[in-house]
Amino acid sequence: MSEINEIMQQAKAAFEVYSKTTPAQRAAFLENIAEQIEAKREQLTTKAHVETHLPLPRLNNEITRTTSQLKMFAAYITEGSWVAAAIDNQPSKPDTRKMLIPVGPVVVFGASNFPFAFSTAGGDTASALASGSTVVVKGHSAHAGTSLLVYAAIQEAIRLSGMPEHTLQHVLGPGNTAGKELVMHPFTTGVGFTGSYKGGTALMQYAAAREKPIPVFAEMSSINPVVLLPDTLTQNAAALAKKLAGSVTLGMGQFCTNPGLLLGIKSPALETFLSELGEEVSQVTPLPMLHEGIHTNYQQGLTEMLPYVVYKGEGEPARAIAMVSAKDFLNIPHLREEVFGPFSLLVTCENKAELKKALQSISGQLTATIMGTDKDLAEHRDIISLQTSLAGRVIINEVPTGVEVNSSMVHGGPFPATSDARFTSVGATAIQRWVRPVCFQGFPDALLPEELQNANPRGIWRTVNNEWKNV
Amino acid sequence: MSEINEIMQQAKAAFEVYSKTTPAQRAAFLENIAEQIEAKREQLTTKAHVETHLPLPRLNNEITRTTSQLKMFAAYITEGSWVAAAIDNQPSKPDTRKMLIPVGPVVVFGASNFPFAFSTAGGDTASALASGSTVVVKGHSAHAGTSLLVYAAIQEAIRLSGMPEHTLQHVLGPGNTAGKELVMHPFTTGVGFTGSYKGGTALMQYAAAREKPIPVFAEMSSINPVVLLPDTLTQNAAALAKKLAGSVTLGMGQFCTNPGLLLGIKSPALETFLSELGEEVSQVTPLPMLHEGIHTNYQQGLTEMLPYVVYKGEGEPARAIAMVSAKDFLNIPHLREEVFGPFSLLVTCENKAELKKALQSISGQLTATIMGTDKDLAEHRDIISLQTSLAGRVIINEVPTGVEVNSSMVHGGPFPATSDARFTSVGATAIQRWVRPVCFQGFPDALLPEELQNANPRGIWRTVNNEWKNV
Repeated sequence: MSEINEIMQQAKAAFEVYSKTTPAQRAAFLENIAEQIEAKREQLTTKAHVETHLPLPRLNNEITRTTSQLKMFAAYITEGSWVAAAIDNQPSKPDTRKMLIPVGPVVVFGASNFPFAFSTAGGDTASALASGSTVVVKGHSAHAGTSLLVYAAIQEAIRLSGMPEHTLQHVLGPGNTAGKELVMHPFTTGVGFTGSYKGGTALMQYAAAREKPIPVFAEMSSINPVVLLPDTLTQNAAALAKKLAGSVTLGMGQFCTNPGLLLGIKSPALETFLSELGEEVSQVTPLPMLHEGIHTNYQQGLTEMLPYVVYKGEGEPARAIAMVSAKDFLNIPHLREEVFGPFSLLVTCENKAELKKALQSISGQLTATIMGTDKDLAEHRDIISLQTSLAGRVIINEVPTGVEVNSSMVHGGPFPATSDARFTSVGATAIQRWVRPVCFQGFPDALLPEELQNANPRGIWRTVNNEWKNV
Repeated sequence: MSEINEIMQQAKAAFEVYSKTTPAQRAAFLENIAEQIEAKREQLTTKAHVETHLPLPRLNNEITRTTSQLKMFAAYITEGSWVAAAIDNQPSKPDTRKMLIPVGPVVVFGASNFPFAFSTAGGDTASALASGSTVVVKGHSAHAGTSLLVYAAIQEAIRLSGMPEHTLQHVLGPGNTAGKELVMHPFTTGVGFTGSYKGGTALMQYAAAREKPIPVFAEMSSINPVVLLPDTLTQNAAALAKKLAGSVTLGMGQFCTNPGLLLGIKSPALETFLSELGEEVSQVTPLPMLHEGIHTNYQQGLTEMLPYVVYKGEGEPARAIAMVSAKDFLNIPHLREEVFGPFSLLVTCENKAELKKALQSISGQLTATIMGTDKDLAEHRDIISLQTSLAGRVIINEVPTGVEVNSSMVHGGPFPATSDARFTSVGATAIQRWVRPVCFQGFPDALLPEELQNANPRGIWRTVNNEWKNV
């Protein structure tokens, strides 16, 4: 208790200094973190491979993604328009000027399935540091050693960049106790989490029960429905099966965007698709899952699906495809729950009306995909619209796994995909979770933040009396 | 129960149609609502005067503000950049494009103190309708007749604009039961509320207890600290007293931005200020408060402050000024609570250090004001910074009452001023409460919303591979 309290005191004290650094200083700091991680690349991937069983090439890619994310945020805050500056200074009206400012220390929970990109120096941390928030990371126990090594790299960057010592701090130890204390601490102003539904909703409840509630962004659970439209099935059943098999089994299915639900209208082509998919999936070479807990959960989930499993590969974890009629899918709620691993459930519908009903029965999602020819898409605008209502990212003719890190990415979605569909945890706008707008009224120019000064010294895009300008 | 259920079913059905209207159609609809309200101006102000006791000139101003808000949102969605469109389409990468879309039916609670601008056709409703959300208004019982008249005006606009019949619906009846049912209904996707701390936190708890939690934006309670710096007190004590007396008693203090807390460092000038302020405030002619409940609450609040009251006008409600040392202010928590009415508490500090402690002891605020000469401001950057950390709007040398409706306004702030400091309920960006981002990946151009199509047919400002463009 006293340890967490001390950490949060330090995080707040560091915030008073760090939140007043310039965007250029923070950008250099983020670049420096990327350099320090790059310098330890081999040590980091070796450790993470031992701890997570993830293959080295995947871990190397993940390090590259992590350093790219840090550099993207450096570029984003340097460009500067993200602060959403707006100036109103019409004659005979008050002079009001608005921009986004950081709120205070943020608590970030490391994710088990991404030891780098969603952990200690991952997207939550990078976006929070970019905003001017200090960060306390609760490292994931499944890769504690990796997390400590990344923490050391960040500490080195803090020293080299001259940032306050406690700009980022790192906590290990039993998840529930320390995690709860961190979320409940009065100095915590926001929480980022990627993990299970159970874990995420527990954090939401802690945050809501505080004397002063704070926002939690929890990315939790998603089965990522993929609709297979009739014409593309007729024309491309085998190719679609191959593509989706790759996506279902990628990283042994341990991705939030894993396509765990496939839906199609009964046809011979759908049968062909199913058998090709089943063959492909079951023949994928098994690799160890991230940790024992995930493996056990997967085995339990698969056991509940057993009555519907039609293809299952040898060895552990079992790569498997199940099939169920839309009628059963609508009647049996647990079929709509996530089975985190190399598994997908095909729902076979009698017709379009039943397909729509099946889609309407599922909860909020990170992604929703439609596979279709031009003809299909023209005839299924209602299905595209339904999928859009479900998810934060809607995809046509590509697989949902693989999340670009850019300004237009949304890794979010209606509950229970996340706790708040208005935000994303991946991409540049992930920064919006950690900031709030402030209106400065009647300020002398020199007392305004640079972003709001008349001369626009940073040359950022902003509105002045509702006109966009960068001068 | 079944009535609320039917209303929410209708709101959802209407959303399916209304959310697909074009911005031009919605803008015309909002303009039409403004026209219908304008056409009933006399009837509306007469009714509201009877129900709320607010003076006719104030009510006329409030109608103008309400119709201006509607027109502002019409212009805002016509301009179109609010959807935050971002396109990434670099070669060899997935084509991803993001924009904001409406989420679903929104429940709006009318406020007692603004029968027009924060009620049936007020800012919450206008921003929600602008976004493409349908709305269910829970009218405030203190001005039910006014609310019904405004509802009739909106219904007329719905008919004339050809919008779905249930684009906006209106509910009356006992606040707690109907309100709870509305917030708990599975089809409700967001809540807007302006009122008491008790009411707002109750709604937050209902929303958090739902099977699928939803965001609540509740604007609740604020004492709006005003810091009076030494040099300006020496130079302008009388003028400051006059200015603040006007703000404290405006509308019998029944504004969320009423300056309920004044802070200064002990000096002869502060004593002069206090006596001038006390004289001014107590001499203001009393007018009836909005309703009996508010009056009773004010009397109770004032009774608790009685030991500190130094000036008090004759008649009801009593206009009053209290004074307390910073030491007592720091030790007695109830002195930091809102007394909603024509009252303000002056905290006298021994020195700057004590002034800072007093500021650090108070919770989140809608506004925070600093009165100071150039010399004062230069010497008190730390006080400006502290005030900024407290509030959604920071004001220099103007009074906090009077909220501009524009693109840079923030009527929000850290808890308990509002439930979520990342949003505002006044100004153009109030629309952000009702929308979420969606990323469209791999979409054929013709299937994209216009805002994201290659040709940019609406000519909106957006980023394309991180460059701002409106072509």
